[in-house]
Amino acid sequence: MGPTNHPLRGGIDLGGTKIEAIVVDADQTVLGSSRHPTPASGGPEAVASELAAAMREACQGAKVEPSNLQGVGIGSPGVVDPATGAVSTARNLPDWEGSFELGSTLSHELGTPVSVGNDVQVATDAEFELGAGRPYRSLLGVMWGTGVGGGLILDGKPWLGRGGAGEIGHMVVKMGGRRCPCGREGCMEAYAGRAAMEARARRQHEEKGQSTDLFKIMKDRGRTKLTSAVWAKALEKEDKLATELIDEAVEALGAGIASAQNLLEVEAIVIGGGLGVRLGEPFVRRIRQAMGPHLFNDAHPPDVLLAGLGDLGGALGAALLVSRRVAGTPAPVAETPSAA
Amino acid sequence: MGPTNHPLRGGIDLGGTKIEAIVVDADQTVLGSSRHPTPASGGPEAVASELAAAMREACQGAKVEPSNLQGVGIGSPGVVDPATGAVSTARNLPDWEGSFELGSTLSHELGTPVSVGNDVQVATDAEFELGAGRPYRSLLGVMWGTGVGGGLILDGKPWLGRGGAGEIGHMVVKMGGRRCPCGREGCMEAYAGRAAMEARARRQHEEKGQSTDLFKIMKDRGRTKLTSAVWAKALEKEDKLATELIDEAVEALGAGIASAQNLLEVEAIVIGGGLGVRLGEPFVRRIRQAMGPHLFNDAHPPDVLLAGLGDLGGALGAALLVSRRVAGTPAPVAETPSAA
Repeated sequence: MGPTNHPLRGGIDLGGTKIEAIVVDADQTVLGSSRHPTPASGGPEAVASELAAAMREACQGAKVEPSNLQGVGIGSPGVVDPATGAVSTARNLPDWEGSFELGSTLSHELGTPVSVGNDVQVATDAEFELGAGRPYRSLLGVMWGTGVGGGLILDGKPWLGRGGAGEIGHMVVKMGGRRCPCGREGCMEAYAGRAAMEARARRQHEEKGQSTDLFKIMKDRGRTKLTSAVWAKALEKEDKLATELIDEAVEALGAGIASAQNLLEVEAIVIGGGLGVRLGEPFVRRIRQAMGPHLFNDAHPPDVLLAGLGDLGGALGAALLVSRRVAGTPAPVAETPSAA
Repeated sequence: MGPTNHPLRGGIDLGGTKIEAIVVDADQTVLGSSRHPTPASGGPEAVASELAAAMREACQGAKVEPSNLQGVGIGSPGVVDPATGAVSTARNLPDWEGSFELGSTLSHELGTPVSVGNDVQVATDAEFELGAGRPYRSLLGVMWGTGVGGGLILDGKPWLGRGGAGEIGHMVVKMGGRRCPCGREGCMEAYAGRAAMEARARRQHEEKGQSTDLFKIMKDRGRTKLTSAVWAKALEKEDKLATELIDEAVEALGAGIASAQNLLEVEAIVIGGGLGVRLGEPFVRRIRQAMGPHLFNDAHPPDVLLAGLGDLGGALGAALLVSRRVAGTPAPVAETPSAA
């Protein structure tokens, strides 16, 4: 039985802290899944092994051999060469120096074709084809998590620019402003990225003595980082520092997303990512409100929506890469008729 | 002889201070031209009469009757409905309240079809088809003048969003920053638009007593506004206030254009507009430099170029609207083989 008889596809969302692997059928129904922590050491080789292990586990759940999948898609941070599957500048992955042939390495391990795309663009594609973005022809996906990533759909097609488009987190919202983890000044991510917010919370707490329960909540949950769940809990407890930092994040998101809208005038903005999905609808409303004062066409604001696929968007989008490879780009709508 | 036997087209650039009308042949050679001041009173009707007078004068130079033109294109400020030729929210034109049927009014006056497009997008189209943007498939046109407008070409086609895309001047470069003529805070145009710079120069001079030759140069030249030529002269004389304000403008342009590039990753940025064309290549270099610290993909910056069509870009782009209307959109490249 050749791979073309098997409509099953694999999708992997490679994140800075976790790996989410799924196996889906032609209707996007998830038949098997697994979640592994992203290796904190060992570099790209260790990550590739863990991706293979996670996909094998998802395949067991779906009762399929990896080599019988139509293919596997990966949504990866960093700069992705879609032609070769090589990944470089993946600064949210530990010890990822230079370029690594992620696609061919994993294809060799699993015995099936592997396509690689940028994690944020892939999640945006999933929202466009299967999620909150389905009614629209143009949209901006804003993935609010460790960093703030952006994905664009213009006139029904992904817009990648010269390959690296969508860096909405590094739009300047305040000249001479706060230092960003990327090293630049005044980026939106310097105020709204979870990594930047954690660094600032640590400084305010440890160096300036500002009281907060953020790090206590973190330890109680056995975490070493301020995860989205930790932020959500601190907000629920009305922790002052957490509230201040999230307020600043919402302001920066409002200014940055409105700027992008003034330039592009898309039909809809979809808010996803770890923090976006965790904080949910009330924060989508707050971001919409924060955009208001900066929107040039304020008589006709875009729709601003919560991501419809939740945590699975990245992995579902990755699996869509396989349909595209098989069908030629982009995936025909007829192949992806229903939402997960 | 019917209009289809006449390959001549009219193009009008309607600006806040002047009207530029030209007649071109199929090779974009300018056969006749005229320049009129934009009426300071009388509203849209007065503007329409002046546009008609300017076009009749350009036709005399080209020895053609207006009614024998293939058509006339207008590049207008404000929100343009390309289907009807109606123009609204043209806040840089005096007394332009509500919507005005500019296209049909002028078509009636001149006896030839009239197409209307947004001035900035039309100038960007001209640079793409005939000017500095010809080698590229994607570009951002930045028209630096009274305001700061943006035009987008993505994958070889104008990107208009829902009709109002390209408002790069109202991207936020400084949350909580300077008040923009549009009423919002921290827009790029609040620092870089000529109108905002003039208002600030007046305040610094008249209210804060900062010395400057800007207004003396203005009066010596018989002007009532700080035109691009006045700014250029003041810079040449190393006027301190003019230098400070232009330095701030360049910083804001650098941050805002880099933000747009981080989002879109186009191949090229073309700098035009009254101030852009007047200050020329040295300032294009300064803007390129000011973008540097904010560019995410700094290893691969876009080409940043001076507009190639100078002051005529707007009128040439307006004339291209006629080719598009005749041929169906967009104008075939074969019809526009040579630069003006």
